[in-house]
Amino acid sequence: MDKKKIKAIIGQLKAKRIGMHGVDFLLSWEKTREELEATFLVADALKGMREIGVSPKLWKSGIAVSNFRDNSTRTRFSFASACDLLGLYVQDLDEGKSQIAHGETVRETACMISFLTEAIGIRDDMYLGEGDKYQREVGAALDDAVKSGVLPSRPAIVNLQSDIDHPTQAMADFLHLAHYYGGLDKLRGKKIAMSWAYSPSYGKPLSVPQGIIGLASRFGMEIDLAYPEGYDLIPEVVQLSAKQAKASGGSLRTVHSMDEAFEGADIVYPKSWAPYDVMQKRVPLLHAGDQAGLKELEKSCLANNAKFKDWECTEERMKLTKGGKALYMHCLPADITDVSCKAGEVAASVFDRYRNDTYREAGYKPYIIAAMILLEKSRDPAATLAKLLARGSQRSATR
Amino acid sequence: MDKKKIKAIIGQLKAKRIGMHGVDFLLSWEKTREELEATFLVADALKGMREIGVSPKLWKSGIAVSNFRDNSTRTRFSFASACDLLGLYVQDLDEGKSQIAHGETVRETACMISFLTEAIGIRDDMYLGEGDKYQREVGAALDDAVKSGVLPSRPAIVNLQSDIDHPTQAMADFLHLAHYYGGLDKLRGKKIAMSWAYSPSYGKPLSVPQGIIGLASRFGMEIDLAYPEGYDLIPEVVQLSAKQAKASGGSLRTVHSMDEAFEGADIVYPKSWAPYDVMQKRVPLLHAGDQAGLKELEKSCLANNAKFKDWECTEERMKLTKGGKALYMHCLPADITDVSCKAGEVAASVFDRYRNDTYREAGYKPYIIAAMILLEKSRDPAATLAKLLARGSQRSATR
Amino acid sequence: MDKKKIKAIIGQLKAKRIGMHGVDFLLSWEKTREELEATFLVADALKGMREIGVSPKLWKSGIAVSNFRDNSTRTRFSFASACDLLGLYVQDLDEGKSQIAHGETVRETACMISFLTEAIGIRDDMYLGEGDKYQREVGAALDDAVKSGVLPSRPAIVNLQSDIDHPTQAMADFLHLAHYYGGLDKLRGKKIAMSWAYSPSYGKPLSVPQGIIGLASRFGMEIDLAYPEGYDLIPEVVQLSAKQAKASGGSLRTVHSMDEAFEGADIVYPKSWAPYDVMQKRVPLLHAGDQAGLKELEKSCLANNAKFKDWECTEERMKLTKGGKALYMHCLPADITDVSCKAGEVAASVFDRYRNDTYREAGYKPYIIAAMILLEKSRDPAATLAKLLARGSQRSATR
Repeated sequence: MDKKKIKAIIGQLKAKRIGMHGVDFLLSWEKTREELEATFLVADALKGMREIGVSPKLWKSGIAVSNFRDNSTRTRFSFASACDLLGLYVQDLDEGKSQIAHGETVRETACMISFLTEAIGIRDDMYLGEGDKYQREVGAALDDAVKSGVLPSRPAIVNLQSDIDHPTQAMADFLHLAHYYGGLDKLRGKKIAMSWAYSPSYGKPLSVPQGIIGLASRFGMEIDLAYPEGYDLIPEVVQLSAKQAKASGGSLRTVHSMDEAFEGADIVYPKSWAPYDVMQKRVPLLHAGDQAGLKELEKSCLANNAKFKDWECTEERMKLTKGGKALYMHCLPADITDVSCKAGEVAASVFDRYRNDTYREAGYKPYIIAAMILLEKSRDPAATLAKLLARGSQRSATR
Repeated sequence: MDKKKIKAIIGQLKAKRIGMHGVDFLLSWEKTREELEATFLVADALKGMREIGVSPKLWKSGIAVSNFRDNSTRTRFSFASACDLLGLYVQDLDEGKSQIAHGETVRETACMISFLTEAIGIRDDMYLGEGDKYQREVGAALDDAVKSGVLPSRPAIVNLQSDIDHPTQAMADFLHLAHYYGGLDKLRGKKIAMSWAYSPSYGKPLSVPQGIIGLASRFGMEIDLAYPEGYDLIPEVVQLSAKQAKASGGSLRTVHSMDEAFEGADIVYPKSWAPYDVMQKRVPLLHAGDQAGLKELEKSCLANNAKFKDWECTEERMKLTKGGKALYMHCLPADITDVSCKAGEVAASVFDRYRNDTYREAGYKPYIIAAMILLEKSRDPAATLAKLLARGSQRSATR
Repeated sequence: MDKKKIKAIIGQLKAKRIGMHGVDFLLSWEKTREELEATFLVADALKGMREIGVSPKLWKSGIAVSNFRDNSTRTRFSFASACDLLGLYVQDLDEGKSQIAHGETVRETACMISFLTEAIGIRDDMYLGEGDKYQREVGAALDDAVKSGVLPSRPAIVNLQSDIDHPTQAMADFLHLAHYYGGLDKLRGKKIAMSWAYSPSYGKPLSVPQGIIGLASRFGMEIDLAYPEGYDLIPEVVQLSAKQAKASGGSLRTVHSMDEAFEGADIVYPKSWAPYDVMQKRVPLLHAGDQAGLKELEKSCLANNAKFKDWECTEERMKLTKGGKALYMHCLPADITDVSCKAGEVAASVFDRYRNDTYREAGYKPYIIAAMILLEKSRDPAATLAKLLARGSQRSATR
């Protein structure tokens, strides 16, 4: 990347008609095609600036709040890196440490953490019907607080994974694909197999496969969604994705065979998730704090999972893909057979061959997050980027 | 707020005779009236600068330590926001993570965390007779370390709540009042009801009501301190406040009826706290680690509390206040009847009506904290602020 | 310190032939004498800049990761302070919070936390044969990731204590000695007693005494390593240190008497550590998660320790040292008899007399850490420092 290339990206960005200022990026399908493209462009521009040593620090001070209601290593670091890059200082809202258990409402906490805050990253993916709802509740509370003069400005909410979508992951995945194939337009007509895979662990959220089909269907891809009977995704998301696929000139087909999905695929994304009915049953049990019931559910779920140990991304299956050379993708960490577990989502030799690809894929996430924040907080993102580039502030003083 | 207004504030600050450099703000009654006013002025100036987009970053690097010996959400974020605004990076001294349990003395820890540190925020409000003492021990250790050349400079200690006072809260509360009424002088003659209120929780510190009467008594207010028999505050604080009230042209009266306190009040502050004798009994039990004794004490305390469920800030009681329109205040989170608990400190409809006021009240805290740090670390605060304003460094580069 | 003095230090640095760029500082004996001296010079220059108020901020953004696999207060704060001084934002890799337990390999985690990262500090001192190995595994993974284009640059690994060495501690200790005696060259011929001492606690790592003899043996010192039978250090480290001592014109002698070691010593470093065979037995028990076995081992170890309660740095023993005035050193926290425990490593009166010396000793650690990072990340450290000094950016705007 050089300065000229970054200027060209900013030029492309200027041509996009977008309305992202002040609007949270919660679900990719709430964004227009041009808005998705704008996000990729800003991410590329920020990555380019860091490569050439120009600091894209947007703020001299400001807080970013991270609220992880589920564990995370890579997303936590991606969010911290993105915020630091823009000049924000991350403060964790650790609900264990806080008084949230003692009667604070969502609305109140949202305000109390936001007096000098520019962005709030939220991961809340454990309860079906809850995570996205919680993010919108926080957003509505912030809107009210700005309107009534309680807050000086509206922090951006970054969806770091909800029960419905995982847009920072899916957008990073597709920026990877765009670079891998030399442009988003190259995705048209490519076949992607978004397939369930066996994992010895339990209860993984549905948001990754939902995010992938929700985004793949925007770019004219031929999508095979594959899973064993009972491992459905949220029906509305699948229906919407099918509609989107058609509209963009592609297709979405649900199959119950990993082989069928892999057949002739350009891209495979084998990834475990929990059965839909288990996800539904978990919600009332979790709310009720019924530990015994949850244990029971887990046991029966794992027993059911075990019937599908052959849903593994093996070398044999990879041979079914286009030229035997489909691009393997994963949000990481993958359950790798004989490495992280006895039987998992992917054979060790397959993962090994694509390891660096998956790492590169992950490497886009900090820039996607930074792009989402910049686009929500800036009225004129192209002008903002042009200003940062022209400023030319050197990130490092090392010789 | 505009630049001219901020300059006027700085002008007012210049006229104050203060001796706050190098002196911790531990108890509001250790500060002169002019010093309190200076704190409000600096807070307003910093808030103004942020509003007009000028960064008041005082430091390019430097550590701020937060030491929370009791839970906190809002004060934690206020401290983090204040420090970030001034350019300090907050590092938590989490005594769970550290080796403090393994024989480190207060003196040693104070030095070890301070080699490049500008401010240390401490919340220690659980033990009567301990929190303020601990803050002074830390301060004395730092003084020694500076004198002996171990430390290059003396970090400011910020009292984020002790057993005696909660000055960042009380000062934020009164800055809110000053803005609400159009000036500190407008508080003269106003009646404030600092009243105990029922809460289903147990053992809340006495520092908020003590902080409020300790500060209200500086401004010529008519204070009614109301609580059920047995819920006394630290006697010395009440006596001192009474003396201060008289000296400032106001009064302090203790009553055992919420109605009496609300009668004709301009301001009401209904807030739960633990009975004084329970706070006293807790100390030896906590020191001894007598869990059974503490459980027993809690049970008897809650049973006693339950006798006073009618100490609630209801619509009926609000009608007793001046014109039925007293300003409701709370340090948050409030125990709201039928919202956060079955029976609490305040009726939902009352809280709802004043919600935004309580949020605005809370919004002053980051600036009060930042003001306390600036005043302790700067020899000439007016000159420092004037320099920051003249520098005109833009906090945000967004377009 | 003044600007002229700092320029002189930079001049001395320029004359050193070093190859530290891109090379981790894991064990002091992997560095040449000139490289050790360069580290001291950079630490002094950075300390000097901070003293005269010039910010040595190297980066405008960038992440530093802290990975503490064992508890820490002072090293945690030293690392945070060092990173903040250079402009890096510290993000904790808390393996409790992360998904590391769920099958992530070292390699993958190393990459995932490093996309925008400049430095990774690791403390891993609990398992003999594991800590140093782990740090090298992380390093190798990062090297691979840079080579394959996954990472834009190689983060520096800072050894915040391994099973073998504790170089940030030992280097801080020796910078303290250099200033105490007026130059590293003054250490030649000085006698240092690195002695085991009794502590009521169990299982302390061997890395401090190993680090001390590994470094003292570089400067022509007469080293007495003293411990009760069975409390050996890693044999290879002792052999190497003996060889180094001879090469530098000094000596290393192992004795089993504290008195013998103290006899005529210029410097004493009385410090507890675990018996070597206990450290060896712990590893398989820890790996196996054999809690009962560990408890049993601890009991027998403490019983064995108790036989050596007389290994204490008393006033009587101090009289054996040169002129009765040896310099007492400790990495802190010390087990002080009648202060932090009934019987410990050092008498209270001895510790009291040297308290400020030990605090000053600790005060060098942040600068040693910052120096290590600067030397690893800069191709021309002297030019980098000269640039930072010439830039003259004021750290504080206070008046």
